Order: sequence, then C-alpha cells, then structure tokens
Amino acid sequence: MSKDSSSKLWGGRFSEEMDSLVEEFNASISFDQKMAFEDIDGSIAHATMLANQKIITKEESKKIIKGLESIAIDITEGKIKWQQSLEDIHMNIEFELTKRIGDLGGKLHTARSRNDQVATDFRLYLKKQNETIIDLLTETMKVFVELAEEHIDAIMPGYTHLQVAQPILFSHHMLAYYQMLLRDQDRFIHSLERMDVSPLGSGALAGTGFNIDPWQTAQILGFQNPAHNSLDAISDRDFVIEFQANASILIMHLSRLSEEMILWTSQEFSFIKLPDSHTTGSSIMPQKKNADVSELIRGKTGRIYGNLMGILTVMKGLPLAFNKDMQEDKEGAFDTAETIIIILKLLLTMMPKIKLNKKRMYYAAGRAYSNATDFADYLAKKGLPFREAHEVVGKLVAIGVAEAKDLEDIPLTRMQNISELIEADVFDVIRLEHVVNVRNSYGGTSSEQVSLQIANAKKILGLK
Amino acid sequence: MSKDSSSKLWGGRFSEEMDSLVEEFNASISFDQKMAFEDIDGSIAHATMLANQKIITKEESKKIIKGLESIAIDITEGKIKWQQSLEDIHMNIEFELTKRIGDLGGKLHTARSRNDQVATDFRLYLKKQNETIIDLLTETMKVFVELAEEHIDAIMPGYTHLQVAQPILFSHHMLAYYQMLLRDQDRFIHSLERMDVSPLGSGALAGTGFNIDPWQTAQILGFQNPAHNSLDAISDRDFVIEFQANASILIMHLSRLSEEMILWTSQEFSFIKLPDSHTTGSSIMPQKKNADVSELIRGKTGRIYGNLMGILTVMKGLPLAFNKDMQEDKEGAFDTAETIIIILKLLLTMMPKIKLNKKRMYYAAGRAYSNATDFADYLAKKGLPFREAHEVVGKLVAIGVAEAKDLEDIPLTRMQNISELIEADVFDVIRLEHVVNVRNSYGGTSSEQVSLQIANAKKILGLK
Amino acid sequence: MSKDSSSKLWGGRFSEEMDSLVEEFNASISFDQKMAFEDIDGSIAHATMLANQKIITKEESKKIIKGLESIAIDITEGKIKWQQSLEDIHMNIEFELTKRIGDLGGKLHTARSRNDQVATDFRLYLKKQNETIIDLLTETMKVFVELAEEHIDAIMPGYTHLQVAQPILFSHHMLAYYQMLLRDQDRFIHSLERMDVSPLGSGALAGTGFNIDPWQTAQILGFQNPAHNSLDAISDRDFVIEFQANASILIMHLSRLSEEMILWTSQEFSFIKLPDSHTTGSSIMPQKKNADVSELIRGKTGRIYGNLMGILTVMKGLPLAFNKDMQEDKEGAFDTAETIIIILKLLLTMMPKIKLNKKRMYYAAGRAYSNATDFADYLAKKGLPFREAHEVVGKLVAIGVAEAKDLEDIPLTRMQNISELIEADVFDVIRLEHVVNVRNSYGGTSSEQVSLQIANAKKILGLK
Amino acid sequence: MSKDSSSKLWGGRFSEEMDSLVEEFNASISFDQKMAFEDIDGSIAHATMLANQKIITKEESKKIIKGLESIAIDITEGKIKWQQSLEDIHMNIEFELTKRIGDLGGKLHTARSRNDQVATDFRLYLKKQNETIIDLLTETMKVFVELAEEHIDAIMPGYTHLQVAQPILFSHHMLAYYQMLLRDQDRFIHSLERMDVSPLGSGALAGTGFNIDPWQTAQILGFQNPAHNSLDAISDRDFVIEFQANASILIMHLSRLSEEMILWTSQEFSFIKLPDSHTTGSSIMPQKKNADVSELIRGKTGRIYGNLMGILTVMKGLPLAFNKDMQEDKEGAFDTAETIIIILKLLLTMMPKIKLNKKRMYYAAGRAYSNATDFADYLAKKGLPFREAHEVVGKLVAIGVAEAKDLEDIPLTRMQNISELIEADVFDVIRLEHVVNVRNSYGGTSSEQVSLQIANAKKILGLK
Repeated sequence: MSKDSSSKLWGGRFSEEMDSLVEEFNASISFDQKMAFEDIDGSIAHATMLANQKIITKEESKKIIKGLESIAIDITEGKIKWQQSLEDIHMNIEFELTKRIGDLGGKLHTARSRNDQVATDFRLYLKKQNETIIDLLTETMKVFVELAEEHIDAIMPGYTHLQVAQPILFSHHMLAYYQMLLRDQDRFIHSLERMDVSPLGSGALAGTGFNIDPWQTAQILGFQNPAHNSLDAISDRDFVIEFQANASILIMHLSRLSEEMILWTSQEFSFIKLPDSHTTGSSIMPQKKNADVSELIRGKTGRIYGNLMGILTVMKGLPLAFNKDMQEDKEGAFDTAETIIIILKLLLTMMPKIKLNKKRMYYAAGRAYSNATDFADYLAKKGLPFREAHEVVGKLVAIGVAEAKDLEDIPLTRMQNISELIEADVFDVIRLEHVVNVRNSYGGTSSEQVSLQIANAKKILGLK
Repeated sequence: MSKDSSSKLWGGRFSEEMDSLVEEFNASISFDQKMAFEDIDGSIAHATMLANQKIITKEESKKIIKGLESIAIDITEGKIKWQQSLEDIHMNIEFELTKRIGDLGGKLHTARSRNDQVATDFRLYLKKQNETIIDLLTETMKVFVELAEEHIDAIMPGYTHLQVAQPILFSHHMLAYYQMLLRDQDRFIHSLERMDVSPLGSGALAGTGFNIDPWQTAQILGFQNPAHNSLDAISDRDFVIEFQANASILIMHLSRLSEEMILWTSQEFSFIKLPDSHTTGSSIMPQKKNADVSELIRGKTGRIYGNLMGILTVMKGLPLAFNKDMQEDKEGAFDTAETIIIILKLLLTMMPKIKLNKKRMYYAAGRAYSNATDFADYLAKKGLPFREAHEVVGKLVAIGVAEAKDLEDIPLTRMQNISELIEADVFDVIRLEHVVNVRNSYGGTSSEQVSLQIANAKKILGLK
Repeated sequence: MSKDSSSKLWGGRFSEEMDSLVEEFNASISFDQKMAFEDIDGSIAHATMLANQKIITKEESKKIIKGLESIAIDITEGKIKWQQSLEDIHMNIEFELTKRIGDLGGKLHTARSRNDQVATDFRLYLKKQNETIIDLLTETMKVFVELAEEHIDAIMPGYTHLQVAQPILFSHHMLAYYQMLLRDQDRFIHSLERMDVSPLGSGALAGTGFNIDPWQTAQILGFQNPAHNSLDAISDRDFVIEFQANASILIMHLSRLSEEMILWTSQEFSFIKLPDSHTTGSSIMPQKKNADVSELIRGKTGRIYGNLMGILTVMKGLPLAFNKDMQEDKEGAFDTAETIIIILKLLLTMMPKIKLNKKRMYYAAGRAYSNATDFADYLAKKGLPFREAHEVVGKLVAIGVAEAKDLEDIPLTRMQNISELIEADVFDVIRLEHVVNVRNSYGGTSSEQVSLQIANAKKILGLK
Repeated sequence: MSKDSSSKLWGGRFSEEMDSLVEEFNASISFDQKMAFEDIDGSIAHATMLANQKIITKEESKKIIKGLESIAIDITEGKIKWQQSLEDIHMNIEFELTKRIGDLGGKLHTARSRNDQVATDFRLYLKKQNETIIDLLTETMKVFVELAEEHIDAIMPGYTHLQVAQPILFSHHMLAYYQMLLRDQDRFIHSLERMDVSPLGSGALAGTGFNIDPWQTAQILGFQNPAHNSLDAISDRDFVIEFQANASILIMHLSRLSEEMILWTSQEFSFIKLPDSHTTGSSIMPQKKNADVSELIRGKTGRIYGNLMGILTVMKGLPLAFNKDMQEDKEGAFDTAETIIIILKLLLTMMPKIKLNKKRMYYAAGRAYSNATDFADYLAKKGLPFREAHEVVGKLVAIGVAEAKDLEDIPLTRMQNISELIEADVFDVIRLEHVVNVRNSYGGTSSEQVSLQIANAKKILGLK
C-alpha cells in the first residue's frame, strides 16, 4: 500500500502528504495491535447490531462478520503484517476487511467513530487483564494461607522499626499478606464494576444520528450497560487510572514482601532459603545466590508508580472530549498489566518453595528482650500503672544490655530490687511460647487466633 | 515540663538526653493535633471497653472519661498548649490527663500501643473527611445538573483536539461532569468501606495479652469490624493511598473543568463570564479579570498528585510492621482533604453564578464545518459507503476553506458536481438545531436524550 | 543452546535449574541489546588495557578484539539472534565470542565484573544520547530564532492567566522558548560532565586484585576519568536520574509550547496554521484538521515524568552496592531518550512551516484593553501614585466593558471626568505599536530590544 | 482593614465583593510571608534604582527605603500581623508602607509588577537556601571523611543484592557517601548559577515603558545579570524544579544511607550503635531503641519526591506567561528546603556519634564465602580461564554450604580433587586482610587506595 495521504481515512481535505516522521510519531500500531481481537469482537458486535437495527442488511452484516472472522484466524496464524502507514489497529483491520470484502468494509464504520471504537476496545482489553489479576490474586492468597497452615509452629521475631519487638508466629506474618491481597482484590473488583461500561454508540463525542441500539452492543460484548453520556464516554480514562492505582498499591505490598524476602535470605538474618530455581548467581563471585526475583519485583515498583504518574499527568487539564494526548494511555497500562501478571505467577511458584530455618527464627525471636512488653504487662496486671511498669522493665533491660543478659537470666532478687511486685511466676510469663500464645485477642498472634484466621481465610478462598 | 528524657514515655532504658533537633524532627504534634478529638474518642471507647472487660474498674473508667471530656472542652476553648517535647497528640493528651487525674491516667494505656492508637485515630479522621467529601460531591453534582436544566437551550461547539467537532448542548457538557463526579463519589464510597476497620486492639503489632474486646471498641467508634490480623492492622496504610488516589482522579476532573473555564472566559472564546466574586485583577494591568479560582484548582492538581506520589514512595519496600517512615502519612492526607473540601465548596458558589454568552456559543458552534459529519451521514444513509461519503465531504470542506464559506453557502449544483447523491434536502440536515437533535442515540446530545439524562440524575440525587 | 543452568555464567554452586518464568523475568536482553556496540567498545578497551598491563598477552588481546569486531559486523548485518537464556547483552556477546575464539573468550572477563561492565556500557550509551540531544537543541533554538527574525513585524496579544495582558511581538514570544531551550541545553551539558566517569575497573564493588589501569580504559573510551570509589561507581545511578530530570524540564517546556500551538490553531484563536504534513484528520468528521503532533508531545510529558518518578522510586532506600532493582534503570532511560529525540526532530520540521495569521493576531492584540497598563503608566508619569492611576484606568475599563468600547473610543471629556490629568496626548500613548515599542527596557518586547535579543542569540548559536 | 474589594490593589473594574472563601483560597500570605525580607530587599533595590534613573526623586526613594527598613525591624520583632485580605506578602508590605509614608508608598510599584516582584523574591529566597545547603553539604562530607579516617582499620562485608559479596573497609563505604554528596553539591552549584538571574524589570510580562536599569537592580541584589527576555522571566520556574530535582537525588542518597543505618543497628546485623540522643523508644515495649531519625529521613523521601512531582505537574501545559497555577510553586519548595536543611544538620550531629562494633563487622565480613572471588582470581592468575575458575570455586562453595564450612576449612587435598592448580599458597590469598588489600586498583578498597581517597577528599574539603 502506498503511503500517500489519500490512503488515510481522513484525507479528503488535505493537500499535502504526511511527513514520514510524523507518521511514525502518530502511529500506535506498534502497541495497540495487542487489542486486535478486542477490536474484531467490537466490530462484530457493531455489525450485528447495525443489521438488527436495519441500518445495514443482514446480508451485509454476515459478509462483514465473516470477513472479520477470517482476519482473526489470520492474526492467530501470524499471517497479517501490520502497517505503520495505517496508523493503528483499527485502520489496519478495516483495511484488511476492505481488501477481503470490498467497499462493503467501509459500511462497518457507519454510526461509529474511532473515538468510541478505541475506548470500547481498550475497556474490553483491560477488563480481561483485571479478571486475570483477580483470579491470580485468589491463587496467590491461597499460597500464603497454605504457608501459614504448613508452618503453624514456627515462631519468628515480629519487628517494628526493624528492631525486634515481640515474637510472633510466622503464620501470622504470612496472613498479614493475605489480608493485603484481599484488599487488593476488592479494589480490582470494584474498579472492574466501574469499568464495565460500553462507550460504543457515543460516536465522535455527541452520539449518532443513526438509530442504533447501544444496549444491544453492550450486552453482546459483556458490558453491564452503555455509557450514559457520550461526551464523558469519549473523554473518560478513569478506568485506566484506577487500574494503575490499584496496581501501584498491590506492588507496594509486594515490594514490602520482597524487602522481607531479601532481608530474610541475607546471611545476617538467614531465616529462609529460596529455591535455586528462583535465584541467580554472580559472574564474578562464585558464592553468590541472590534473591533476584524479589529484588526485581521491588524494583518494578518504580515502573508501576511511574505508569500511574504518567497517565495522571497526561489527563491533567485536558479539555473535553478526545485529545491525541490520550493515545498515551495504553502503553503504560499494557506494561503494568503484564508486569503484575508475571509477578503474581512468579510468586505462585516461588513462595511454596521457600525453606524455613525455624531454629534460627526461634533463636532470633527470643533475643533483644522481645518479652519486655509481657514483663510490663505482668506488672500492670498486678496493679502498677502501665507507664510505671514500662519504666521498671526499661531499667531491667538496661541491666541486661550492660551485662549482655536476657531478662530471664537476671536473678529474681535483683529484679525485686527494682520492683517488689516481681515474683517467681514472672519466668513463665516471659517464656517465648507463652509470650506468643498469650496474645490471644481477636486478630492477635496466638496459635488459637492464627488458626481462626486460617480457617476464615480458607472459607473465603474456597479451600477445605 | 522539662525536656529531660525521663519525661518521655519510653525513657527507662535510655541514659542520654534526646538531641533537641531530633526532638523537633521527630515530633508530629505540629500536625497531628488535628486528630485531637479522634484521639479522645478513641480513648473513651478504649476506657469503656476496659471497664466492661473488667481490666480496669468502672470507677477508674469514669474518672478517665471525665478527664478526657474536660480536655476536649479545653481544646475547643483553645486552653491547651501542645508541647513539642511530648512528641505527638497522643502523648500530649495523656500528659494532660495524668495532670488532671493522676497516675490513673497511665492505666489508659493498658492493652493499647501507640501503634494501634494512631492507626485508629487516623482512620477516624479520614473517615470523616471522606464522608464530608461524599456529601459535597452530591451538592456539586446538583449544581451541574441544575446548570444543565437551566440552560437546556444553549448550543455550543463540541470539541475534539480543541478543534470544533460537532455542536452539542451546553447541558450535555455539564452532564459529562456530573458523570465524572458520580464515579468519583462511588470511589470514595467504596474506599470508605475498606477504611471502615478498627485497628484498636492490635497492640504494638501482635495483639495483646489482656482480655480485650475489639469488637466492642469498633462498634463504639462506628467501625464495621475490628482488624482481622494485628500485624497487618499496624502495617497498613492502604486507606491513605486510596484516599490520595481518589482525590487525584477527582482533581484531575476538576483540572479539566478548570481548563475549560479558563478557555471559555478568554477573550477568544468568550463563552462565559465569571462573577466578580470569584475572579481577581492585576496589580499593574487595570483591565484584567482573571479566573484565578479555576487556575488555582488546576494548579493544585500538582499538590495532590504529589501527595499521592509521596505516600506511595514512603510505603515502598518497608518491612512490617510499623516504621517511623509511616509518620509521613498524615500531612499529605490532611493537605489533600482540606484542599479538596475547599475546592468543592468554591465550585458550589462559583458555578451557579457563571453567565453564559449563548449567542457567542451558538455562533461558534456553527463554524468550522461542525455539520460535516452529518453531511457525510446523509450520504451514507443514501447508500454511499461511509468512507466515500467522508471523502466527498472532505472535498466540500476544502472548497469551503478556500473560499471562506460554510457548507450551507456552497450552491447545490456545485455540490452535485462532487456527488450526485446530494439533493436540496441536505440543507435541512446540516442545520445546527437539526445536527444537535438528530444525535438522539442513548447518551447522545439531542434535547430528548439530555432531558432524559437530567431526569435520571435528579432521581439519583433526590432532586425533584 | 540448552537452557540448563550449567550454561549460566554463575552456575557452579547451583543444583536446580532456573524456572523458565524466572528466566524470562530476569532477562534484560530484550532491551539491553540497544547497548551492544557500547558493550563491544567497552570490551575492546578492556582487552587492550589487559594486554598493555600484561594481564593477558598481546596475542590474546588481538584475538579477542578481532572476535569482538567480527561480532559487531554481524550485529550490524542482523546475523546474530539474541538468546533470552543468556540473560543480557553482556553474556550474549561473551557467548558469541567464545563460540568464535574458544576458551580464550573467558579471559576477557578477567579483572572485570558484570557490575562495572554494565555501568560502563550504560554511561557510554547515555553520553551519546545526551550529545545528540545537545546538538538537536542547538538546531531547535535556531528555528525559534529564525522564526523571531522572520516575523519581527507581527504583534500578538501577550497573556497572563490566558487573559489578554499587553501586546507583544510574536518574536518576543518565540525568543522566550529560545531562552528555555538554552537553559535545557546548559543542564544537559552540566550533567554530561558529571556522567563522564568510567566505572570500568571497579569490579563487583571493591575494585580488583589485578594490576589494571582504569585511567587507560577511561581514556580509550573517551571518559574524563575513572571512578574514584569503586563502591560508589557500582551503586550510582545519578546520571540516569539527572538525565530524566533534565528531560522532564525540557518536555515541560515543550508541553507549554504545544499547549500554545493547540490554542493558536483553534478556531477561536486562529493565530496560526499548521502544515498539512504535521496534522491529521478524523475518521468520522471530514472537516477536522488536528494538531496531533503538538497534542502528542504534550501527552508524552506523562511518559517522561513517569520515567523520572520510576527511577527515583527504584533507587529509594537501596543499600549499597548493586541490587537487581537497578536493572530497572534502562528501559525508562531508553524510552525518554528516544522520545525526546524524535520530538526535537519533529519540531525542526514543523515549526518552520507554521503560517501566521498576522491580521488576526494584531486584531486580538488590540482588544481587551491591552493598553490599560500604558494608560495607567501615562498617569503615573504625570505624578499620580501608581495605585491611583490603576484605579482611574480600572474605572475607564468598567465603562468600556459596559458600553462595549475600547479605551480609545471613550471621548476625552468623559475620561477627564474621571481624572483631569488625562489629555489628548493619551491617544498616542495607547496606540498598539506605541504600547509595544515603549517597552524598551532590557529584555522587553520593543522592536529594538527584540532585535538585540535576536542578535545575541545568533551570536551564541553561530548564526550570521 | 475592611475586607471590601476596593482595598484590593486591582479593584477598579470590579463591582462585586470577593467571596470570602475565594479570598482564603487565593491568599498566599500564610506561606509567602517567609519571603518578607527578600521582598523588602527587592523593594529597596527597586526604589534605589528608580531614584538613580530619576523616575522618582532621591527624596522619595529615601522615604520609601526608610519606611521599608522600619517594617523589616517590626517584622523581626513580631510586631506585624499579616492580613489574609491583603492576599500576599507583597501587598501586606505595601499596605504597611503606605500606612507609614502615605501615598508615596504607591510610587514604589512604578515600573514593577507583582509578576516580576514575586519571581525576584522567590529567586532570592531559594538562592539563600541553595547556599545554605551547599555549605551544609561541605560539613556533611567532612563528617564522612572523618569517619573514614577514624575507622580506617575496620573491615566489614561489602554487599551486592544484600548478600555478602566481598570484604571492604568501612572507610571505603563512608567514602562512597562522600562521593554522592560531592555530586549533589556540584548539582546545587550548577543550578545556583542558572538561578542567578534577576527578573526585576520584566514587568507583568513585556518589560516596562519606564527608563529603568535592570542591570543595576540585579547588581544590588547580588544577581549575575537581569533576565534577557521578560516573557520568559515571568513564565520560568525551572529554578524551582531544578531545586526539587537536586533535593530528590540528595535525599535518595540519604534514604540509602538511612536504610543501611537501620539494617546495621538491627539485632541481626548489630554493626553499629546509635547514640541515645538520636533514637527513640516505644510507649509499650520497654526494650526498644529505634533508629527513628534514619527512618524518618528515609520516609521524607516521599515528601520530597512528591514536591518534585507536584511542581512538574503544575507547570505541564501552561501557556505563557504567568498563570495563577504557579502560586503553587512555593510551599513545596519551602518544605523541601527546610526538610533538607534539618536533615543535614541532624546528620552532622548523629553520624560522628555512631559506635562501631568492629568485631561483629569483621566476623560477618569473613562469612558467606566472601573470599570466593579471590579464590577464582587465584586460579585465573594461574592461567585458568576465569569462567572455569569461577566454576571450580562454585563447586567448593557447594561443598562448604553442604558441610557448613568456610573455604579455608576445606582440606587442600579435597580442593585439589576439584582442581589440581590449587596449592597451599591459596590460604594466604583468601585471608580476609589480604582479600581487602589486594584490591589495590584505583578506587579500590585496599588500605592504600582508601587512604589516597581520604587524602584527596581532605584536600578538596580544605581539611588538614
């Protein structure tokens, strides 16, 4: 096909050829080809409706649909070469169609504009990605719940400020991630509802003069309803931003998990081992075994935050309705969707294979006076105002630090010098298992509460 | 009160005084004082529950609550001076309480940590802001619907690429904003649900050994339920990010509205006039009347995007549970909430006072061949494939441009030289009112459809 | 080549095969192949130095270099197929080399790590892009200066708040962009200096035990000096962030230019026409001629801001030295470089072809009381405090607005009712040409000052 | 002062009072009061020039200056109450002036606009902050160099991927931060040069008709030169963005340092201890000693990135010249400047007080096969291609891991089973001190090279 402007779909009033660099700059076919099947689906729905509404004949509709289906097959088989001179996937497919069924191909564009067409295709595409992510999140949650169930006996340090705070169950920690992912999923589900609107029928911006039935196309394409305002339907990219925002929160969670995987596999922590299959070595240092997957997930947070910031910037201050700026909505969304999907798939294979060093965890959980709160609570229960109890134990810790002793190694009598309320029963109270299991408040880290959390999660996830 | 470290609530193990610059850097009282009443509410709920659970006596609980209530009154009356040396609002209030009721004040902290306390207060605060914004959005939507109803007769140019595309009703344009705000509201409502979780009872990170009832405190404070995992409850700031993301999308919409207000009040457009009350002049140019409010709203998009990016950055890669980094969650959220609220209030007073220059709008709507699509549709309806119809009209436009004529000014015979399908009835088809009203597809710009949109919106908003 | 882990360069201690999804996730060959020639240049420099330092023999060095050169040729001719299983461009090239020259290929990695290798390659790549941008900026500045010179007679409205403020020369406006680009260029030049450091020789992070000469490799590769601290050299990505920040400011400028091009080509402004070659039409609206290039430039601001935010996020909180997260530094930088370069090239062909509608500009410049400041200055020069003069003219403007008159159309006697200081000579003062040319302060918009600006710019740009 | 609009400086053409919420929204006095002294300095310079140019009399100038000086004193003494109804600092000061010297106060605004006034004030303000930061960076670099010098004997693990890679000197690590800060300082210095331009004289946007001398005011205020294009001078906020970008890179560095401080003070690493003066405890856990300062620095990265993103968003797509959006340039810049300054001051007091646990560092440095690279280098030097040497050592590491042995604990004969090239001298080669000191390449971690780095840094910093 020649590159002369008369081949463009809008060439009538133009006398000069498009600059070739402009063509390259304007064309979106290099990335919007990802929406080829959505475009064909949308066109089939449109052709079906046009015939039902007698805007074209049943005969014409059949030929158009047959043509489109043959194109779909050829795409699957890699037989179609997209052309930059045809700008985008929509024009490429229409060009193919016209090659196959002649001038009739042009009728497909009756009562439709590229503006509503592209918005429809993009929503179809993102809906699918959303659904995939929602499903993958269910699978990922299962992994965390299964890890929690499998290692219900493992005690590890709980941290605040990366300082050992109180001992917790490793399972409790895993279930915190389950909670985050559950919220993530809820966000994607809510956004999917808002995304579930068909712009088809909104025309260029103002609707159309043809007697179309947008409820019909919406239904064929699996949308809940057509857009209620054509101008808004063309101008709106909220669904992209929401997707990016949800993905940003999700990867933020995963960046926290990754940070912990990296910490826990460091020599200094040595809490877990990653499978060889999910680590890499060094070209120069023969001993290295790096948590590359986790690092890369953490790193990809930048990419996804950047994509969010990108689309927010694009949309800022744009007058209604469509502006070419909005062509910049897709690459970032494609990139985010693909990134999130591969990351979730990786977690599905990596997390079940982590090996816990439970001894090391247990040991670490008992250090750094992680039972100091319980000591203070012990005193508080004996009637000392908590602030004073805190003060007493603070002094004991200071002794411990000075003499490199754990609290349980300080003789009772010395303790009693600080506070007479301390009695021999304190040693039971500050034992590690006790410290964990006493936290039996709802949502707490005791075995009982964690088991309850697991049971609830399994119910929600349909696990037995 | 002296600044020595023993006055800190955690001073027991510390031997050296805090550096004064550190104190200034660490303290959050300068901003978290905004949560004073939420802190008191949270403490009252906690004290009530502690008594119900017999962790403290009813007597003690009463005294604590009375003390807290007297503090609340004194805050309202501006009688309390917050102290930086007491770090934050929580410690300031506890200090006040202890001053009033003695050592008993210290008991309030039984079975509670600053970590769950601050998370609770912040959620209470943001819930209120969310609710305020949801209500203001309803009011703002009403304004747009009322504008649409009032000016149902006004025709204006519809734009794509800021080029005149097709004439539309001004009301249709206003209703596009109604749709955006409706989605915004839906997002805030959904986020509010996810935010509606009480962290109280999660302790420092692992729950508590006291026999608390977190369902009870949740209920007293108006939360739907307590947190299901204490570690997550302390670590989670999703509710802040969601709030920032929702606000970002909302202000993005308002930045688009603002851009249009600025364009429409420019000399070149002159579509509307703003009330003097919402514009400003220049210190040097006596003729200036600037749409400052709209410009500033558009400008404040930067602040809100920045706040979103800020909290996303803060949370990236943080290990569980609390880290001091997270203290950076509040100022941005306060700023965003206050900014959004004042902006919505401003729109409530400004938008109803805009004056339309309907003649100018109507004139502009008829220029730039805004009826060309209808001309092409006319030919398509006569059986010409749309692509060819487009080509024919493109040629007529080229003639128009060359001879500075509108389409309706080109003689029929000359038109017929381009296409024999053109007949005299075309002139009716391309008349402005016809062009608008023919777009009678669902969601389109015809009077009928726009009236339907208005009726639906009024039903949703409870307007009659 | 098989995918078994023994083919990896770091497989010795690994017993399990890499998961294929991990391989896909980890591999960077899909994008870092852009640095193939930089990698070969770096390796040739390294091999040369190794021989000079007698770490390998001259013979070995020659064979290695010959092998590398043959690879370079094959790359140019598209004969090499990059393999994902070989992770990145560095391993792919080394694999190729070993295929060609046998085990000797392995010696090339003596005294080098992938960490210093990749940092070197990336700096070489970005230096080139930087230099290209610096050159293109010179060309772009010339275009603006030539536009200024060509249209020195054109008067247009100067705006603040998008309200007509004071008339200015179109040339003055063009020269404002010249100033912005000059600062942009200065930023790229300064950053290039800081980027001009060779990490080669820094090893994995700590330097090397071989007797290398990093000054030599730096010199061969055209770097100013080697890195002064090996740990920093491996950890540092400042040069990427600076590049992204400079590009962000540059595209911010271009987004402002684009906004103006879009406004000026709107029907309402109609100040300029764009060449057909740089605009596009609509698939549905035959009359449309859209400033797509400008819109897309403005839209691409999002992408570039996003890339900046991305790399800033990646680097936040990373411990030294290399972390896999940092692999995320490249795609954004490649994207930004390519985007900026094509945009500058587009401006080089588009801007010289814009057509001014000088009559329209002149007309618009005279509306909206753009001479009100001069009227006030006139009174101030007669001794009225400026604030009072402002007040007087404000009242005259109010009369004008009420009666739809320009200031020059208000009879002198009516003016004198407002202030007796007004005399007949005021009409000269408020004439458009006078209003422009009286602003003869340094940097002002008078013909004289603008001509001086042009002359200075031509000197700086080497134009005659 | 009453709030009626006639008190505004631009009230002439306005008939309606400003809405009070609008006034609150528009006013900037709540934050721009920080520029009070810069505003007075700018006005004194302007008044001086006006007199020198005979635009006002020497007498008038003197009175104005005297009035301004008395205001400056009153500000210092806290005697002036800023009024929101007067919008901003500029109008507040002018109002004060007029109160003191009568109508003459109005003359100060001759040949000046708020647009050039505010741009001048803001540049003066940011220049000072820039200079303060540049000085503080010098002091901070000294601290790192002094730490390096003091602890030249301390060996610690060098990490990549947070896995132990090779042992390095602690001093080498400190000097990496010195290098980063040196680049930071270079950036601030370069930006300061570009910022060093006086907008005074640019008027509202087009220059002025008065015979001013902008070179004179530039010189009085300490600027290198006046702006060369008035339109650009009013439109430009590059200097703010550069400042934000520089600050973002700087805090990114400090976030990395903070991450390391947090890691190193964790129980698991225990490499250093922070002074009590720079840590805090927990309200509930008596044993906690948290690296709050470091965490908060890391957290404040979000704020500063957000401020950068904010100003970039504000400026995107704004037409020239001034738009009210640009009022949003200041709060973020003030916040960033103050944040950076307090953080640098904190590092100045905290870093010198850190206590090293050298034994622990040394021990950790010897673990995890940190000498494996040297073992491989040893074989490479004996002629084995590096890739094969890497493979050999990888196998030895695998043995070590399986048997929980360091490399030096594997008997020579077993080693020789893997490679016959291994001889008894290998034990010297893989000794920790040797491993460090053998990395004697320029920029490497050997004592010699690190000492050289220290010497060079001291020369640059003027230390002896």
